[in-house]
Amino acid sequence: MIVKRAGEVAGEEVPAGVGTSRQVLIGPEEGPHFAMRRFRMEPGGGMPNHTNTVEHEQYVLAGRATIGIGNEVVEVQKDDVVYIPANVPHWYRAEGDEPFEFLCMVPNLPDETRLIDED
Amino acid sequence: MIVKRAGEVAGEEVPAGVGTSRQVLIGPEEGPHFAMRRFRMEPGGGMPNHTNTVEHEQYVLAGRATIGIGNEVVEVQKDDVVYIPANVPHWYRAEGDEPFEFLCMVPNLPDETRLIDED
Repeated sequence: MIVKRAGEVAGEEVPAGVGTSRQVLIGPEEGPHFAMRRFRMEPGGGMPNHTNTVEHEQYVLAGRATIGIGNEVVEVQKDDVVYIPANVPHWYRAEGDEPFEFLCMVPNLPDETRLIDED
Repeated sequence: MIVKRAGEVAGEEVPAGVGTSRQVLIGPEEGPHFAMRRFRMEPGGGMPNHTNTVEHEQYVLAGRATIGIGNEVVEVQKDDVVYIPANVPHWYRAEGDEPFEFLCMVPNLPDETRLIDED
């Protein structure tokens, strides 16, 4: 690949999420070191508290959300940059009336998503 | 870091560019595997043909540009995804009346920028 229109890349629902879909914009077979994904969370959607074995580097493209990272809770919006270290619990809740959209880059390393039982 | 407002991160002029500045949003000391930078090219600005020893994964945030990558010349705009392999010559020319802005992620590996003499 050289150029893709992000809107033309197929998306898939994220099973652990609510109203959350993901597009792989640059996958591990295209970029040798890290992948670029775009997430979209519909109003009211999000992801429950979970860990990943890889860190996330994120950039907010649109909308607003509340994100929990470890013991911190932050409000984010367009043009905010978020860093989530590997193995740190995190969750997302889309806020407001428009979808929350962000890029999420991860290294090409084995990843495991583990949901955290909140009961 | 957990969250940064991109607009609050200091920028620096890119010496090899024209009307081109760069912000390091997540640097090598913050992300263990790759860095996130944001570039801004003023109307009429850009970068001459050059190579880097690391690949680029890019996402266009605003504006329009013409980009040369190897033997290809492409027109890009907001929400386009660009992949520039390591060591492939590439150049940028901002088009239109608004700044061309894009994210550019690179692995945390030694990089050398080499300008290509077009004479």
